[in-house]
Amino acid sequence: MSKIKNDLFLRALKGETVQRPPVWMMRQAGRYLPEFMEIKAKYDFFTRCQTPELASEITIQPIRRFGMDAAILFSDILVVPQAMNIEVEMKPDIGPWLPDPIRSADDLDRVIIPEIESSLGYVMDAIKMTKDKLNHEIPLIGFAGSPWTILCYCVQGRGSKNFDKAKEFCFTQPHAAHALLQQITTTTISYLKAKVAAGVDAVQLFDSWGGLLSPEDYQVFSWKYMQQIIDALKSQVPVIAFGKGCWFALDVMARSGASALGIDWTCSARNARYLTGGQITLQGNFDPTRLFSPPSEIKKQVKLMIDSFGKDRYIVNLGHGILPNIPVENAAAFVEAVKEYKEE
Amino acid sequence: MSKIKNDLFLRALKGETVQRPPVWMMRQAGRYLPEFMEIKAKYDFFTRCQTPELASEITIQPIRRFGMDAAILFSDILVVPQAMNIEVEMKPDIGPWLPDPIRSADDLDRVIIPEIESSLGYVMDAIKMTKDKLNHEIPLIGFAGSPWTILCYCVQGRGSKNFDKAKEFCFTQPHAAHALLQQITTTTISYLKAKVAAGVDAVQLFDSWGGLLSPEDYQVFSWKYMQQIIDALKSQVPVIAFGKGCWFALDVMARSGASALGIDWTCSARNARYLTGGQITLQGNFDPTRLFSPPSEIKKQVKLMIDSFGKDRYIVNLGHGILPNIPVENAAAFVEAVKEYKEE
Repeated sequence: MSKIKNDLFLRALKGETVQRPPVWMMRQAGRYLPEFMEIKAKYDFFTRCQTPELASEITIQPIRRFGMDAAILFSDILVVPQAMNIEVEMKPDIGPWLPDPIRSADDLDRVIIPEIESSLGYVMDAIKMTKDKLNHEIPLIGFAGSPWTILCYCVQGRGSKNFDKAKEFCFTQPHAAHALLQQITTTTISYLKAKVAAGVDAVQLFDSWGGLLSPEDYQVFSWKYMQQIIDALKSQVPVIAFGKGCWFALDVMARSGASALGIDWTCSARNARYLTGGQITLQGNFDPTRLFSPPSEIKKQVKLMIDSFGKDRYIVNLGHGILPNIPVENAAAFVEAVKEYKEE
Repeated sequence: MSKIKNDLFLRALKGETVQRPPVWMMRQAGRYLPEFMEIKAKYDFFTRCQTPELASEITIQPIRRFGMDAAILFSDILVVPQAMNIEVEMKPDIGPWLPDPIRSADDLDRVIIPEIESSLGYVMDAIKMTKDKLNHEIPLIGFAGSPWTILCYCVQGRGSKNFDKAKEFCFTQPHAAHALLQQITTTTISYLKAKVAAGVDAVQLFDSWGGLLSPEDYQVFSWKYMQQIIDALKSQVPVIAFGKGCWFALDVMARSGASALGIDWTCSARNARYLTGGQITLQGNFDPTRLFSPPSEIKKQVKLMIDSFGKDRYIVNLGHGILPNIPVENAAAFVEAVKEYKEE
């Protein structure tokens, strides 16, 4: 593997001392960008995911405009259940829509553990094309949803405030739930290993709905499977584990072998460092809605945030994905503030 | 004031030693009850709130069936903005719907600080009628939304996953936001004082969306106003402060003069006791979706929960409102488990 020129992100993942922390933004390749909206107007969601030319172009767009220190492949966590023979649509104004959700053990009969190359080969092609376009300038991140978060959509059938049907399924049919979680886990491990083989430099696991579970249920229905994935990947590539709202599990996550943990904005830098034992690299945690603030205020708050986390063992990011209606100049201010960072 | 026969709830609020903790459930007067659905089929939402015969009957329904240790007046947090001349509708399948949300300083021109008796007198009539029906058997709780949570609806105009428009309003127009928050606070204080005069034995503040804010923004946009309300009420009546997802503020909340703090299910008993300093009464924190579990499992988990919080300085409750699709026998198991509780 030839050397990546800007290796700030990879060095932060290793815990090395850096001049300034690296920066990227969750959902940085997204709807707040006019150039993304142009592509979106022409191609539907899964066409964008499944066409390597489009996915790689979308991945590069924010880098071209803002110069983040890492790119993340444009894709969706729901390509995994789709490959597992669970139908997934993306409906305008609604978002993910699964016409035939999993609600019983019988429904699992139609779920398969797919052969990755034939079902998700388009992702690997997009990775190779993106790596070519990035030309060793910055690293490329691959990602997957956590098995629990994938289950949430497979059972609920769509987004939800509390994913009550998904939780009901787990609490009334735990055997079926664990069978599904294990199938998703097994698929995700093969999927991420294929991504590594195709060239990603790090992977991130998104547990977007882990914070809906109690600490006990989180260990049983989410973390157990996250840990399996980390165990399978950590020797090959740095793994970032992000559980939104999962402050209560940060102690266990810090001992998992993950290279870094994502932090959301409800957990202060001080709490995050305390709960994780102070040694592991942390990533986050700017409130995405705080990007509505004027650019000068954003810059002030980013500076404060870096001072709080400390410049080392730290990756600047948002606490969740960037919102579609954030002004482009505000996103620019966020990245610039990091590049201008000087310790005092 | 004549003595209430079952004073378990009031004694727990005072921190007294009790044989078993008291129990009630947030939204206990609600859609999971068939007798509630019968009334709902005949009268629309605000008719139920505004008709003392209906509101008091609905309040009593769960007591009659399950025998909780406290009743909470059937009403809605949005009667406050409604009285402030902000139109609020309740739409089937959508929930709260504000056709003309607050989006600018100019929009505040139409907001009034209402005279309570003429605008919300129906609530006081419902309290008096409910107190008569309760006949000194158990205490009656009155409630209000936190100013931040009310602002969320006033600005967003409806429910939301992230209340992005409400947060954008606060972060881009902080002067207008604080003006609105203060108007809501002033109204809420008068409203709760009138409730106390009408006979409620305790009040609870619901900060349902406090957990969407960062710890710093929470202090500025939510807690500051919660504290004003607690200061104004605490000498008259015990105040319970509940901030969903607000684990990060529990230390400040514990020093506020509130008699008890509500805890959600993401914060373990151990964390909650630690973060609050171990002295204040805590209320919660059963995951509402855990009521989907079979009754035997519910009883086991309630027992464990009481053991974890300890029987004193503790009020058994859910960590958020009971869900509409919970089986009645499961709600019964929850209450029974508390009444059967014996320390080992």
